[in-house]
Amino acid sequence: MMINEIEKLINSFSRLPGLGSRSARRIVIHLLKYREKMMIPLAESVMATAKAVKTCTICGNLDTNDPCGVCMDANRDKTLICVTETVADMWAIERGKIFNGYYHVLGGSLSISDNQTPDELNIDSLISKVQKNEVAEVILATNATLDGQTTAYYITEKLKPFSVKISRIAYGVPVGGELDYLDEGTLGAAMRSRQPF
Amino acid sequence: MMINEIEKLINSFSRLPGLGSRSARRIVIHLLKYREKMMIPLAESVMATAKAVKTCTICGNLDTNDPCGVCMDANRDKTLICVTETVADMWAIERGKIFNGYYHVLGGSLSISDNQTPDELNIDSLISKVQKNEVAEVILATNATLDGQTTAYYITEKLKPFSVKISRIAYGVPVGGELDYLDEGTLGAAMRSRQPF
Repeated sequence: MMINEIEKLINSFSRLPGLGSRSARRIVIHLLKYREKMMIPLAESVMATAKAVKTCTICGNLDTNDPCGVCMDANRDKTLICVTETVADMWAIERGKIFNGYYHVLGGSLSISDNQTPDELNIDSLISKVQKNEVAEVILATNATLDGQTTAYYITEKLKPFSVKISRIAYGVPVGGELDYLDEGTLGAAMRSRQPF
Repeated sequence: MMINEIEKLINSFSRLPGLGSRSARRIVIHLLKYREKMMIPLAESVMATAKAVKTCTICGNLDTNDPCGVCMDANRDKTLICVTETVADMWAIERGKIFNGYYHVLGGSLSISDNQTPDELNIDSLISKVQKNEVAEVILATNATLDGQTTAYYITEKLKPFSVKISRIAYGVPVGGELDYLDEGTLGAAMRSRQPF
Protein backbone atom coordinates (compact mmCIF):
# COMPACT_ATOMS: atom_id res chain seq x y z
CA MET A 1 0.00 0.00 0.00
CA MET A 2 0.92 3.61 -0.37
CA ILE A 3 2.99 4.60 2.58
CA ASN A 4 2.94 8.03 4.20
CA GLU A 5 6.09 9.34 2.48
CA ILE A 6 4.81 8.53 -1.00
CA GLU A 7 1.39 9.99 -0.21
CA LYS A 8 3.01 13.16 1.09
CA LEU A 9 5.06 13.51 -2.08
CA ILE A 10 1.98 12.99 -4.29
CA ASN A 11 0.29 15.65 -2.20
CA SER A 12 3.19 18.09 -2.72
CA PHE A 13 3.14 17.56 -6.48
CA SER A 14 -0.65 17.93 -6.63
CA ARG A 15 -0.29 21.50 -5.31
CA LEU A 16 1.80 22.57 -8.31
CA PRO A 17 -0.04 24.60 -10.97
CA GLY A 18 -1.82 22.49 -13.55
CA LEU A 19 -1.53 19.26 -11.58
CA GLY A 20 -4.24 17.39 -9.70
CA SER A 21 -4.02 14.36 -7.47
CA ARG A 22 -4.31 11.99 -10.42
CA SER A 23 -1.54 13.55 -12.52
CA ALA A 24 0.62 14.00 -9.40
CA ARG A 25 0.28 10.30 -8.64
CA ARG A 26 1.26 9.41 -12.21
CA ILE A 27 4.37 11.60 -11.95
CA VAL A 28 5.41 10.18 -8.57
CA ILE A 29 4.95 6.59 -9.76
CA HIS A 30 7.05 7.40 -12.82
CA LEU A 31 9.77 8.93 -10.65
CA LEU A 32 9.71 5.95 -8.26
CA LYS A 33 10.20 3.65 -11.23
CA TYR A 34 13.36 5.51 -12.26
CA ARG A 35 14.74 6.40 -8.84
CA GLU A 36 18.44 6.47 -9.74
CA LYS A 37 18.14 7.77 -13.29
CA MET A 38 15.50 10.41 -12.81
CA MET A 39 14.22 10.95 -9.28
CA ILE A 40 17.51 11.67 -7.46
CA PRO A 41 18.83 13.92 -10.28
CA LEU A 42 15.53 15.85 -10.23
CA ALA A 43 15.75 16.35 -6.47
CA GLU A 44 19.32 17.61 -6.83
CA SER A 45 18.40 19.90 -9.71
CA VAL A 46 15.41 21.40 -7.86
CA MET A 47 17.55 22.00 -4.77
CA ALA A 48 20.49 23.48 -6.70
CA THR A 49 18.24 25.81 -8.68
CA ALA A 50 16.34 26.90 -5.56
CA LYS A 51 19.62 27.85 -3.91
CA ALA A 52 21.17 29.51 -6.98
CA VAL A 53 18.26 31.65 -8.13
CA LYS A 54 17.78 35.21 -6.90
CA THR A 55 15.19 37.89 -7.58
CA CYS A 56 16.77 40.72 -9.58
CA THR A 57 16.66 43.85 -7.44
CA ILE A 58 16.39 46.05 -10.55
CA CYS A 59 13.63 44.45 -12.60
CA GLY A 60 12.18 41.58 -10.50
CA ASN A 61 13.33 38.85 -12.90
CA LEU A 62 14.51 35.47 -11.57
CA ASP A 63 18.11 34.62 -12.40
CA THR A 64 21.24 33.14 -10.85
CA ASN A 65 22.74 36.64 -10.90
CA ASP A 66 21.52 39.86 -9.33
CA PRO A 67 21.28 42.12 -11.32
CA CYS A 68 19.94 39.62 -13.84
CA GLY A 69 21.30 38.89 -17.31
CA VAL A 70 18.78 41.18 -18.99
CA CYS A 71 19.56 44.15 -16.74
CA MET A 72 23.31 43.53 -17.24
CA ASP A 73 22.94 43.40 -21.03
CA ALA A 74 24.39 46.72 -22.21
CA ASN A 75 23.20 46.18 -25.78
CA ARG A 76 19.61 46.95 -24.95
CA ASP A 77 17.73 50.17 -25.46
CA LYS A 78 17.63 51.86 -22.06
CA THR A 79 14.94 54.30 -23.12
CA LEU A 80 12.38 51.47 -23.20
CA ILE A 81 10.85 49.70 -20.18
CA CYS A 82 8.32 46.94 -20.65
CA VAL A 83 6.10 46.36 -17.60
CA THR A 84 4.77 42.84 -17.02
CA GLU A 85 2.72 41.29 -14.25
CA THR A 86 4.90 38.20 -13.78
CA VAL A 87 8.33 36.77 -14.57
CA ALA A 88 6.55 34.24 -16.79
CA ASP A 89 5.11 37.08 -18.89
CA MET A 90 8.57 38.66 -19.15
CA TRP A 91 10.04 35.36 -20.34
CA ALA A 92 7.23 34.96 -22.88
CA ILE A 93 8.14 38.33 -24.44
CA GLU A 94 11.86 37.45 -24.34
CA ARG A 95 11.13 34.18 -26.15
CA GLY A 96 9.35 36.17 -28.83
CA LYS A 97 12.61 38.08 -29.48
CA ILE A 98 10.56 41.17 -30.38
CA PHE A 99 11.68 43.56 -27.67
CA ASN A 100 15.12 44.95 -27.02
CA GLY A 101 14.59 47.19 -24.02
CA TYR A 102 14.56 46.47 -20.31
CA TYR A 103 11.78 45.07 -18.12
CA HIS A 104 9.99 45.79 -14.92
CA VAL A 105 8.09 42.92 -13.26
CA LEU A 106 5.23 44.09 -11.04
CA GLY A 107 4.83 40.79 -9.21
CA GLY A 108 1.10 40.54 -9.87
CA SER A 109 -1.84 42.77 -10.72
CA LEU A 110 -4.22 44.96 -8.77
CA SER A 111 -7.10 42.75 -7.81
CA ILE A 112 -10.19 43.35 -5.75
CA SER A 113 -11.03 39.64 -5.62
CA ASP A 114 -7.50 38.65 -4.50
CA ASN A 115 -7.25 41.75 -2.31
CA GLN A 116 -3.97 42.84 -3.94
CA THR A 117 -3.21 46.50 -3.30
CA PRO A 118 -0.77 48.84 -5.12
CA ASP A 119 1.80 48.74 -2.29
CA GLU A 120 2.18 44.97 -2.76
CA LEU A 121 3.31 45.50 -6.35
CA ASN A 122 6.62 46.96 -7.53
CA ILE A 123 5.05 50.22 -8.64
CA ASP A 124 7.06 52.68 -6.53
CA SER A 125 10.32 51.35 -7.95
CA LEU A 126 8.92 51.80 -11.47
CA ILE A 127 8.13 55.45 -10.70
CA SER A 128 11.67 55.96 -9.32
CA LYS A 129 13.11 54.52 -12.54
CA VAL A 130 11.04 56.91 -14.63
CA GLN A 131 12.08 59.84 -12.39
CA LYS A 132 15.77 59.00 -12.42
CA ASN A 133 16.51 57.30 -15.71
CA GLU A 134 16.54 58.18 -19.33
CA VAL A 135 13.29 56.30 -19.91
CA ALA A 136 11.44 57.58 -22.96
CA GLU A 137 8.63 55.04 -23.15
CA VAL A 138 6.92 52.69 -20.71
CA ILE A 139 5.18 49.83 -22.50
CA LEU A 140 2.43 48.26 -20.42
CA ALA A 141 2.25 44.52 -21.12
CA THR A 142 -0.17 43.56 -18.39
CA ASN A 143 -2.73 40.87 -19.17
CA ALA A 144 -5.83 41.61 -21.19
CA THR A 145 -7.96 40.88 -18.13
CA LEU A 146 -9.96 43.15 -15.86
CA ASP A 147 -7.19 43.08 -13.24
CA GLY A 148 -4.48 43.63 -15.84
CA GLN A 149 -6.31 46.62 -17.30
CA THR A 150 -7.00 48.08 -13.87
CA THR A 151 -3.29 47.81 -13.12
CA ALA A 152 -2.35 49.45 -16.45
CA TYR A 153 -4.79 52.28 -15.76
CA TYR A 154 -3.43 52.78 -12.22
CA ILE A 155 0.17 52.96 -13.48
CA THR A 156 -0.81 55.37 -16.24
CA GLU A 157 -2.29 57.70 -13.63
CA LYS A 158 0.83 57.45 -11.47
CA LEU A 159 3.14 58.23 -14.39
CA LYS A 160 1.10 61.16 -15.71
CA PRO A 161 3.21 63.80 -13.88
CA PHE A 162 6.31 62.69 -15.79
CA SER A 163 7.15 63.42 -19.39
CA VAL A 164 7.24 59.78 -20.40
CA LYS A 165 5.36 58.17 -23.26
CA ILE A 166 3.06 55.39 -22.04
CA SER A 167 1.85 52.71 -24.43
CA ARG A 168 0.01 49.43 -24.16
CA ILE A 169 0.58 46.28 -26.23
CA ALA A 170 -2.19 45.81 -28.78
CA TYR A 171 -5.27 43.69 -28.18
CA GLY A 172 -6.66 41.95 -31.23
CA VAL A 173 -7.06 38.76 -33.20
CA PRO A 174 -4.20 36.35 -32.42
CA VAL A 175 -2.07 35.57 -35.47
CA GLY A 176 -3.46 32.37 -37.01
CA GLY A 177 -6.72 32.83 -35.10
CA GLU A 178 -9.99 32.16 -36.86
CA LEU A 179 -12.62 34.80 -36.25
CA ASP A 180 -15.29 32.18 -35.95
CA TYR A 181 -13.73 30.81 -32.76
CA LEU A 182 -12.92 34.11 -31.04
CA ASP A 183 -14.88 35.61 -28.18
CA GLU A 184 -16.70 38.89 -28.74
CA GLY A 185 -14.40 40.78 -26.38
CA THR A 186 -11.37 40.06 -28.56
CA LEU A 187 -13.29 40.77 -31.75
CA GLY A 188 -14.52 44.07 -30.32
CA ALA A 189 -10.99 45.08 -29.29
CA ALA A 190 -9.66 44.12 -32.72
CA MET A 191 -12.36 46.17 -34.42
CA ARG A 192 -11.80 49.24 -32.25
CA SER A 193 -8.01 49.08 -32.78
CA ARG A 194 -8.29 48.64 -36.55
CA GLN A 195 -5.36 49.96 -38.57
CA PRO A 196 -5.22 51.53 -42.04
CA PHE A 197 -4.41 48.85 -44.62
CA MET B 1 16.66 35.95 -19.14
CA MET B 2 16.31 32.28 -18.50
CA ILE B 3 19.60 31.00 -17.33
CA ASN B 4 20.95 27.53 -18.02
CA GLU B 5 20.09 26.05 -14.61
CA ILE B 6 16.47 27.12 -14.85
CA GLU B 7 16.21 25.89 -18.45
CA LYS B 8 17.65 22.53 -17.43
CA LEU B 9 15.12 22.20 -14.63
CA ILE B 10 12.24 23.07 -16.96
CA ASN B 11 13.57 20.43 -19.32
CA SER B 12 13.67 17.81 -16.54
CA PHE B 13 10.08 18.56 -15.54
CA SER B 14 8.90 18.48 -19.15
CA ARG B 15 10.00 14.84 -19.38
CA LEU B 16 7.58 13.78 -16.63
CA PRO B 17 4.39 12.05 -17.79
CA GLY B 18 1.59 14.43 -18.71
CA LEU B 19 3.81 17.52 -18.76
CA GLY B 20 5.04 19.48 -21.77
CA SER B 21 7.48 22.36 -21.96
CA ARG B 22 4.75 24.92 -21.31
CA SER B 23 3.33 23.25 -18.18
CA ALA B 24 6.86 22.47 -16.96
CA ARG B 25 7.78 26.15 -17.26
CA ARG B 26 4.69 27.15 -15.32
CA ILE B 27 5.60 24.72 -12.54
CA VAL B 28 9.22 25.86 -12.36
CA ILE B 29 8.23 29.54 -12.26
CA HIS B 30 5.77 28.74 -9.48
CA LEU B 31 8.46 26.88 -7.54
CA LEU B 32 10.97 29.72 -8.05
CA LYS B 33 8.43 32.13 -6.64
CA TYR B 34 8.13 30.09 -3.45
CA ARG B 35 11.70 28.92 -3.07
CA GLU B 36 11.80 28.61 0.73
CA LYS B 37 8.22 27.55 1.31
CA MET B 38 7.80 25.11 -1.53
CA MET B 39 10.83 24.45 -3.73
CA ILE B 40 13.38 23.39 -1.11
CA PRO B 41 10.84 21.22 0.79
CA LEU B 42 9.88 19.55 -2.50
CA ALA B 43 13.51 18.80 -3.33
CA GLU B 44 14.00 17.29 0.11
CA SER B 45 10.82 15.26 -0.12
CA VAL B 46 11.69 13.88 -3.59
CA MET B 47 15.18 12.94 -2.39
CA ALA B 48 13.99 11.35 0.90
CA THR B 49 11.33 9.31 -0.89
CA ALA B 50 13.74 8.20 -3.61
CA LYS B 51 16.10 6.90 -0.97
CA ALA B 52 13.44 5.32 1.27
CA VAL B 53 11.38 3.47 -1.33
CA LYS B 54 12.16 -0.11 -2.31
CA THR B 55 10.62 -2.53 -4.76
CA CYS B 56 8.89 -5.36 -2.85
CA THR B 57 10.67 -8.60 -3.71
CA ILE B 58 7.45 -10.57 -3.25
CA CYS B 59 4.86 -8.63 -5.27
CA GLY B 60 6.72 -5.82 -7.07
CA ASN B 61 4.94 -3.03 -5.16
CA LEU B 62 6.81 0.15 -4.21
CA ASP B 63 7.03 0.80 -0.48
CA THR B 64 9.44 1.95 2.21
CA ASN B 65 9.52 -1.65 3.46
CA ASP B 66 10.45 -4.85 1.68
CA PRO B 67 8.30 -6.96 1.86
CA CYS B 68 5.73 -4.21 1.40
CA GLY B 69 2.81 -3.37 3.68
CA VAL B 70 0.35 -5.36 1.58
CA CYS B 71 2.47 -8.52 1.57
CA MET B 72 3.03 -8.16 5.33
CA ASP B 73 -0.70 -7.76 6.03
CA ALA B 74 -1.71 -11.10 7.55
CA ASN B 75 -5.42 -10.26 7.41
CA ARG B 76 -5.61 -10.79 3.68
CA ASP B 77 -6.86 -13.83 1.83
CA LYS B 78 -3.76 -15.71 0.73
CA THR B 79 -5.69 -17.90 -1.69
CA LEU B 80 -6.22 -14.87 -3.98
CA ILE B 81 -3.59 -13.20 -6.17
CA CYS B 82 -4.48 -10.23 -8.34
CA VAL B 83 -2.10 -9.69 -11.26
CA THR B 84 -1.61 -6.10 -12.50
CA GLU B 85 0.65 -4.56 -15.13
CA THR B 86 1.92 -1.70 -12.99
CA VAL B 87 2.17 -0.50 -9.40
CA ALA B 88 -0.23 2.31 -10.37
CA ASP B 89 -2.86 -0.29 -11.34
CA MET B 90 -2.31 -2.10 -8.05
CA TRP B 91 -2.80 1.14 -6.12
CA ALA B 92 -5.95 1.91 -8.10
CA ILE B 93 -7.47 -1.42 -7.00
CA GLU B 94 -6.34 -0.83 -3.42
CA ARG B 95 -8.01 2.59 -3.43
CA GLY B 96 -11.23 0.91 -4.53
CA LYS B 97 -11.13 -1.19 -1.33
CA ILE B 98 -12.78 -4.04 -3.22
CA PHE B 99 -10.07 -6.68 -3.02
CA ASN B 100 -8.64 -8.35 0.05
CA GLY B 101 -6.08 -10.73 -1.40
CA TYR B 102 -2.46 -10.25 -2.41
CA TYR B 103 -0.99 -8.78 -5.58
CA HIS B 104 1.56 -9.58 -8.23
CA VAL B 105 2.88 -6.67 -10.33
CA LEU B 106 4.16 -7.75 -13.74
CA GLY B 107 6.08 -4.56 -14.43
CA GLY B 108 4.49 -4.00 -17.84
CA SER B 109 2.70 -5.93 -20.55
CA LEU B 110 3.76 -8.04 -23.49
CA SER B 111 4.10 -5.68 -26.38
CA ILE B 112 5.19 -6.15 -29.94
CA SER B 113 5.39 -2.42 -30.57
CA ASP B 114 7.50 -1.77 -27.44
CA ASN B 115 9.41 -5.00 -27.97
CA GLN B 116 8.64 -6.24 -24.45
CA THR B 117 9.15 -9.99 -24.09
CA PRO B 118 7.88 -12.39 -21.37
CA ASP B 119 11.29 -12.66 -19.67
CA GLU B 120 11.24 -8.91 -18.97
CA LEU B 121 8.04 -9.31 -16.93
CA ASN B 122 7.67 -10.93 -13.50
CA ILE B 123 5.94 -14.00 -14.89
CA ASP B 124 8.30 -16.72 -13.66
CA SER B 125 7.90 -15.55 -10.08
CA LEU B 126 4.11 -15.69 -10.51
CA ILE B 127 4.36 -19.30 -11.67
CA SER B 128 6.57 -20.14 -8.68
CA LYS B 129 3.98 -18.61 -6.34
CA VAL B 130 1.23 -20.71 -7.89
CA GLN B 131 3.42 -23.83 -7.66
CA LYS B 132 4.45 -23.27 -4.05
CA ASN B 133 1.61 -21.44 -2.38
CA GLU B 134 -1.93 -22.11 -1.42
CA VAL B 135 -3.19 -19.95 -4.29
CA ALA B 136 -6.73 -20.91 -5.29
CA GLU B 137 -7.44 -18.15 -7.81
CA VAL B 138 -5.37 -15.85 -9.97
CA ILE B 139 -7.33 -12.74 -11.00
CA LEU B 140 -5.92 -11.11 -14.12
CA ALA B 141 -6.35 -7.34 -13.89
CA THR B 142 -4.29 -6.37 -16.92
CA ASN B 143 -5.50 -3.45 -19.01
CA ALA B 144 -8.34 -3.83 -21.50
CA THR B 145 -5.89 -3.14 -24.33
CA LEU B 146 -4.42 -5.40 -26.99
CA ASP B 147 -1.15 -5.68 -25.03
CA GLY B 148 -2.99 -6.26 -21.75
CA GLN B 149 -5.11 -9.01 -23.28
CA THR B 150 -2.11 -10.64 -24.95
CA THR B 151 -0.39 -10.69 -21.57
CA ALA B 152 -3.46 -12.17 -19.87
CA TYR B 153 -3.68 -14.85 -22.54
CA TYR B 154 0.03 -15.69 -22.22
CA ILE B 155 -0.23 -16.04 -18.43
CA THR B 156 -3.34 -18.21 -18.76
CA GLU B 157 -1.41 -20.58 -21.02
CA LYS B 158 1.51 -20.69 -18.60
CA LEU B 159 -0.75 -21.46 -15.62
CA LYS B 160 -2.81 -24.13 -17.37
CA PRO B 161 -0.69 -27.03 -16.01
CA PHE B 162 -1.60 -26.06 -12.44
CA SER B 163 -4.89 -26.61 -10.70
CA VAL B 164 -5.55 -22.95 -10.14
CA LYS B 165 -8.67 -21.02 -11.06
CA ILE B 166 -7.90 -18.18 -13.47
CA SER B 167 -10.29 -15.26 -13.83
CA ARG B 168 -10.26 -11.87 -15.49
CA ILE B 169 -11.84 -8.64 -14.22
CA ALA B 170 -15.00 -7.79 -16.17
CA TYR B 171 -15.06 -5.50 -19.19
CA GLY B 172 -18.23 -3.49 -19.59
CA VAL B 173 -20.00 -0.18 -19.29
CA PRO B 174 -18.32 1.96 -16.60
CA VAL B 175 -20.63 2.78 -13.68
CA GLY B 176 -22.23 6.14 -14.42
CA GLY B 177 -21.28 5.81 -18.08
CA GLU B 178 -23.77 6.86 -20.73
CA LEU B 179 -24.11 4.36 -23.57
CA ASP B 180 -24.29 7.17 -26.08
CA TYR B 181 -20.71 8.22 -25.33
CA LEU B 182 -19.12 4.77 -25.21
CA ASP B 183 -17.00 3.25 -27.94
CA GLU B 184 -18.27 0.16 -29.73
CA GLY B 185 -15.53 -2.04 -28.25
CA THR B 186 -16.76 -1.41 -24.72
CA LEU B 187 -20.39 -1.80 -25.75
CA GLY B 188 -19.60 -5.07 -27.52
CA ALA B 189 -17.76 -6.40 -24.47
CA ALA B 190 -20.63 -5.34 -22.20
CA MET B 191 -23.13 -7.08 -24.46
CA ARG B 192 -21.14 -10.30 -24.67
CA SER B 193 -20.62 -10.41 -20.90
CA ARG B 194 -24.28 -9.74 -20.09
CA GLN B 195 -25.58 -11.14 -16.82
CA PRO B 196 -29.00 -12.49 -15.84
CA PHE B 197 -31.03 -9.71 -14.20
